[in-house]
Amino acid sequence: MIRTPYLLFLGDAHDQLAAKVAQGIQDWRPDNVVGQFRMPGCKADVGAKDMTLAEAYDAGARTLVIGVANRGGVFSDAWLDVMVEAMETGFDIASGLHSLLRNSPMLREAAERTGRTLHDVRIPTVAYPIANGAPRSGKRCLAVGTDCSVGKMYTGLAMDAEMKARGMKSSFRPTGQTGILITGEGIPLDAVIADFMAGSVEWLTPDNDADHWDHIEGQGSLWHVSYSGVTMALIHGGQPDALILAHEPTRTHMRGLPDHALPSLEALRDQALALARIANPDCVVAGISVNTKALGDDEALALCAEIEDRMGLPTVDPFRHGAGRLVDALAAI
Amino acid sequence: MIRTPYLLFLGDAHDQLAAKVAQGIQDWRPDNVVGQFRMPGCKADVGAKDMTLAEAYDAGARTLVIGVANRGGVFSDAWLDVMVEAMETGFDIASGLHSLLRNSPMLREAAERTGRTLHDVRIPTVAYPIANGAPRSGKRCLAVGTDCSVGKMYTGLAMDAEMKARGMKSSFRPTGQTGILITGEGIPLDAVIADFMAGSVEWLTPDNDADHWDHIEGQGSLWHVSYSGVTMALIHGGQPDALILAHEPTRTHMRGLPDHALPSLEALRDQALALARIANPDCVVAGISVNTKALGDDEALALCAEIEDRMGLPTVDPFRHGAGRLVDALAAI
Repeated sequence: MIRTPYLLFLGDAHDQLAAKVAQGIQDWRPDNVVGQFRMPGCKADVGAKDMTLAEAYDAGARTLVIGVANRGGVFSDAWLDVMVEAMETGFDIASGLHSLLRNSPMLREAAERTGRTLHDVRIPTVAYPIANGAPRSGKRCLAVGTDCSVGKMYTGLAMDAEMKARGMKSSFRPTGQTGILITGEGIPLDAVIADFMAGSVEWLTPDNDADHWDHIEGQGSLWHVSYSGVTMALIHGGQPDALILAHEPTRTHMRGLPDHALPSLEALRDQALALARIANPDCVVAGISVNTKALGDDEALALCAEIEDRMGLPTVDPFRHGAGRLVDALAAI
Repeated sequence: MIRTPYLLFLGDAHDQLAAKVAQGIQDWRPDNVVGQFRMPGCKADVGAKDMTLAEAYDAGARTLVIGVANRGGVFSDAWLDVMVEAMETGFDIASGLHSLLRNSPMLREAAERTGRTLHDVRIPTVAYPIANGAPRSGKRCLAVGTDCSVGKMYTGLAMDAEMKARGMKSSFRPTGQTGILITGEGIPLDAVIADFMAGSVEWLTPDNDADHWDHIEGQGSLWHVSYSGVTMALIHGGQPDALILAHEPTRTHMRGLPDHALPSLEALRDQALALARIANPDCVVAGISVNTKALGDDEALALCAEIEDRMGLPTVDPFRHGAGRLVDALAAI
């Protein structure tokens, strides 16, 4: 168990989106956040209180959570120094990066010396089975995106929260480090070995009551060549009854791939649905989730209305507008 | 380096297809095979000479190769006894199963005691990068199947052999245990962790001469829900210029999934091409490879002709008829 509350480590994040792990924790479990720790040059700010290690510890924080995600990341010397000092101050460290805390001799030595714990949440702790494709009871919803980092997790969390508020049976099923740090459970899907990906998603979303909804956290995008295999495993292991299309309208190219264009929502709808129906012939596209964070209020509403009119599907920003209309669509399935 | 020649261990294989690793080695590197070792109840026979451990050792064999593939396999007590005896006889052991030789205390103890080596070829030995999707020079061909175990590897090996016979520049790029045991190199793709799958395929098929062909070994199928994520990573990491559709016409359901139907060749063509063009807009479907092993000579020719007529693509069994017409098609790209 990772001790709460957290101090969110933003390091020297190269842009706001790099701190999405911290932002997610701040947005969805603010009670678990005491403050944020930023270093010179940090280009992210998740809206928590800027604090030193000592201030945060005095305020009750007990785990320094590495809230910065990067591709295949490594720890800089500056980061390592902060983490060692954090442990000397009394913090455990939690990280979801591929680069494991436990593989750093410096961090291991400091953890031993200070009696602190290193939590690597990217390491699968379960021996997942091979997927068997058997039809499962209960209902499952999966967000699929035009790109990575468009709001798939927020969509799932928002729909789960709305369903719970209505007294409906619902669970959010994390598949990434942020969701795992938010809920305390889930699968670190992108660190599962290839043959077992779909099986881990089946394991995550077992048989349930007929009127129970699993909101499976989406990962990657079928159009993002680095990670599309992970997305595919979610579609087939998740066996969703409903897909929600997720999009961020100011994105000019696929994240991390400057020469790759985003697909249209129409192309995403058609491709994702065709693949999903291999696992569940009854799957439908139920709605669209637009991340309007970069837009003003009027612009956001106008854009959602325009997409809804074009696509013929309920379209909202679930974080800004609430997930009610998406839940209405699911409830009708 | 794994010492050759091999004794192929077929154990108590539950059907012929379970011994495809052994069959592949026998078919493509017969000079490296001294014989086969079968146990009571074994339902596979790869056509090598049945031998005891002692006979095979006397005939020069130096590695016992576990030639039986199974889903997420484990070693039975009977198998372990044979493997220990093999090491005592002087054999090293090589295996490509997910279940690692090195994780068995019994095998580790015997290896230490006898001074023998345990080779787990399913373990990635390279720290693969994250895929970057950059266009690569040279040409790449990928076989995609209506199911697992339809002949994708044989297709690639046959095309590579035909190209080499014609003096064309060509390499076969293994992605599975059999290919790795045949060629001595490649990536154990299904044991790579999810986020690095596509990157491992990019690593496997780097920039090359404009007239060089990489024949990338296909894995799984877009229609096989257990492994479709691996297939997806091959399509996007491989960035193929050409796809070959692979099929086994007597298959009545997806391998291991009795309730799942195979797709039509038309559906496979359309789906695989749409996904491939995300990575390489110039990709084309060049031909069709039919595994006619279960058919008579006339039947095989008639079926290939019928498929060719229907699909408008050169259609052969490359192992039975030669890969010439498929290579003709690639040479024209």
